[in-house]
Amino acid sequence: MNARRDVGIDRKRLEQSIEELGRIGATPRGGLTRVALTDDDKRGRDLMVRWMREAGLRVTVDQMGNLFGERAGTQALPPVMMGSHVDSVPTGGKYDGQLGVLCGLETIRALDTHDIRTRHPVMLAIFTNEEGARFQPAMIASGVMAGKIPLEDAYNARDKDGIRLVDELERIGYLGSEPCVPRAFRAYLELHIEQGPCLEEEGLSVGVVDGIVAISWSRLTLSGVQDHAGPTPMRIRHDALVAAAKIVTGVRAIARELGGELVTTVGNLVVQPNIVNAIPGTVTMSIDMRDPRDATLDLARRRLDALVKAACEREGVRGELDHYWRVPYTPFAADVVAAIDRAAHASGARFRHILSGAGHDAQYMAAIGPAGMIFVPSRGGRSHCEEEFTPMDDIEYGAGTLFRAVLDLAG
Amino acid sequence: MNARRDVGIDRKRLEQSIEELGRIGATPRGGLTRVALTDDDKRGRDLMVRWMREAGLRVTVDQMGNLFGERAGTQALPPVMMGSHVDSVPTGGKYDGQLGVLCGLETIRALDTHDIRTRHPVMLAIFTNEEGARFQPAMIASGVMAGKIPLEDAYNARDKDGIRLVDELERIGYLGSEPCVPRAFRAYLELHIEQGPCLEEEGLSVGVVDGIVAISWSRLTLSGVQDHAGPTPMRIRHDALVAAAKIVTGVRAIARELGGELVTTVGNLVVQPNIVNAIPGTVTMSIDMRDPRDATLDLARRRLDALVKAACEREGVRGELDHYWRVPYTPFAADVVAAIDRAAHASGARFRHILSGAGHDAQYMAAIGPAGMIFVPSRGGRSHCEEEFTPMDDIEYGAGTLFRAVLDLAG
Repeated sequence: MNARRDVGIDRKRLEQSIEELGRIGATPRGGLTRVALTDDDKRGRDLMVRWMREAGLRVTVDQMGNLFGERAGTQALPPVMMGSHVDSVPTGGKYDGQLGVLCGLETIRALDTHDIRTRHPVMLAIFTNEEGARFQPAMIASGVMAGKIPLEDAYNARDKDGIRLVDELERIGYLGSEPCVPRAFRAYLELHIEQGPCLEEEGLSVGVVDGIVAISWSRLTLSGVQDHAGPTPMRIRHDALVAAAKIVTGVRAIARELGGELVTTVGNLVVQPNIVNAIPGTVTMSIDMRDPRDATLDLARRRLDALVKAACEREGVRGELDHYWRVPYTPFAADVVAAIDRAAHASGARFRHILSGAGHDAQYMAAIGPAGMIFVPSRGGRSHCEEEFTPMDDIEYGAGTLFRAVLDLAG
Repeated sequence: MNARRDVGIDRKRLEQSIEELGRIGATPRGGLTRVALTDDDKRGRDLMVRWMREAGLRVTVDQMGNLFGERAGTQALPPVMMGSHVDSVPTGGKYDGQLGVLCGLETIRALDTHDIRTRHPVMLAIFTNEEGARFQPAMIASGVMAGKIPLEDAYNARDKDGIRLVDELERIGYLGSEPCVPRAFRAYLELHIEQGPCLEEEGLSVGVVDGIVAISWSRLTLSGVQDHAGPTPMRIRHDALVAAAKIVTGVRAIARELGGELVTTVGNLVVQPNIVNAIPGTVTMSIDMRDPRDATLDLARRRLDALVKAACEREGVRGELDHYWRVPYTPFAADVVAAIDRAAHASGARFRHILSGAGHDAQYMAAIGPAGMIFVPSRGGRSHCEEEFTPMDDIEYGAGTLFRAVLDLAG
């Protein structure tokens, strides 16, 4: 027996839970499609509620459909919360979100198995619509809880078919009555897959997350002159897609030139009228830029401004660039990070400190209390796809780290 | 009175017809949306049938819904056909297609007004779905007539909602019984807007079209690795859109480097999954290249092959390039071009010879008989948009040229 198995996490039980929950919305190629507030999301929630009740937790549902399962503490103190989500992107994987929820459940089961009482209550939280695949923005429910998104706005978010979030919450039976407002907690802990290649490349099982990088989202509309692709000579063209292409390659170049950990992505690009024999009249595109240093992101934005200006002038098109979303670097609470570090060490995991390149509910939770995250490796750095995979050995180290950190923080 | 008005074209009558037909499917900004086999297309056809019958023509409908109105000749000879179409692209203009049909009708009305009998019959043809905006390919009905597209394939063409062409033909009452097969004609004449800027720039009213440029259509699918835009470092990315952007700028460069009359366009480009925070996994795009010289187009294709190979290697993505459509340079019949040249001269128009950069029904008709085209200017070279405009003075010269050419060829 390996020493780390003494801490109480039941690897088999955890593995079976991952398999069982993973069957709800499973895709033929081993992935998961369990988009927020669909029937499969409801089935996933139903299973979690059943498991939480079987574990003796008091289950409540708030106005945003967030689920909370509470294990009482020996004292009337704020809880140690563990949280994540059960919704997925379309043809996503069965680790993102689900793994954090199930490692949290396993932590509670292990406390029961070993008959451990904690001073602080221990709570499992399952957030609604973390992915933002169906209703925008992502992390909408923790955003409401943190007071960053008005409840009314969240209720009125519509999917691409015009269906409102609140109506779907009601339809699947998860429109709760508990107020979705900031709540006190001793610590918020979220275990998640890294979604990047670093841990795997370095042969590590656990990442102690120091914070979430700063993120900048911009939207660009390029307006050229739509015309017929045949009889229009090159010399009189104002092709919105040619300007857009210069910007896509320029956005890549910004990351290369500024270097460091800056990542830049054009993920969304739509052409109009988008037919073979028409010179594109309009292109809209997104620009996503992330860096741990806010100053680098400021510099990247200035480079983007100059790039758009030059590309538009060169092609004779009009550009409207809107920097519509910006979140600064989010550092996690020092005492929570330290507790995770101790837990990772005690679990025997090979680990290092790391930053999160993706947003998580932990980001909003960090705004209202002490929060931290635990990463486990993503094979090939892949996520949001059916190929998403984390070896069970790493999951065991991650769950062990979560369990020990909870023990530490819940006293 | 200007000399050219003696030939018999009634400018006012023609102008009124353009206005009246232009009201069917008119858009608020002065354009036209009369997409093939919609209710508005039916209303446009109904009006044309009424006008053709009022002009004493014998009207028939073939299996593809092509309309023919025949004015008898004094001898049993093949007809001189004038043709074009009444369908439009969405938010198109009221000159493309419609102008050729109405100048043809005006020619017949003018023959009647002046009580002119011709040896050859004179026929007006209105082709179904020329634009290809709803059912692909474009020019599908003249393609069937020329034997280039099987009738069954055309019938089974589906629009984006899955509706079959044949079912829409039947629904609007234009599924005729006359076989859609090659027919004999003395000449086929199509008057059309230039859709380019050359005639306007040179202050000319008429273009005598010598032929239609060679056209190459290719489709490229780029397969990279879809991943999360945050935690995925730049060094491990295989971004299909970055590769696509290199190709868009490279396609533009091919035209610049080879020069001459080569035009190259990426008109259609679709990204998957096309969300802000996902590195694009797949991009599909079209490449449209046209040149009067087949050899230049061959060279451009080889450049495109090399460009795609280099961009794919650089970004580490897979590219599948399919050169799926190629039409060689289509020269028009020397005797028809000569007749148009004489007619343009006699009409007093300032004119020159020109090539068509766009495909037209005349291209398929040229495969089964002697064909030619007459161009009139497009303001600013614009077409397939609400801004499409041709001054009435130029239309009068164009219609006069058509009338004289018909008189010449019909004897």
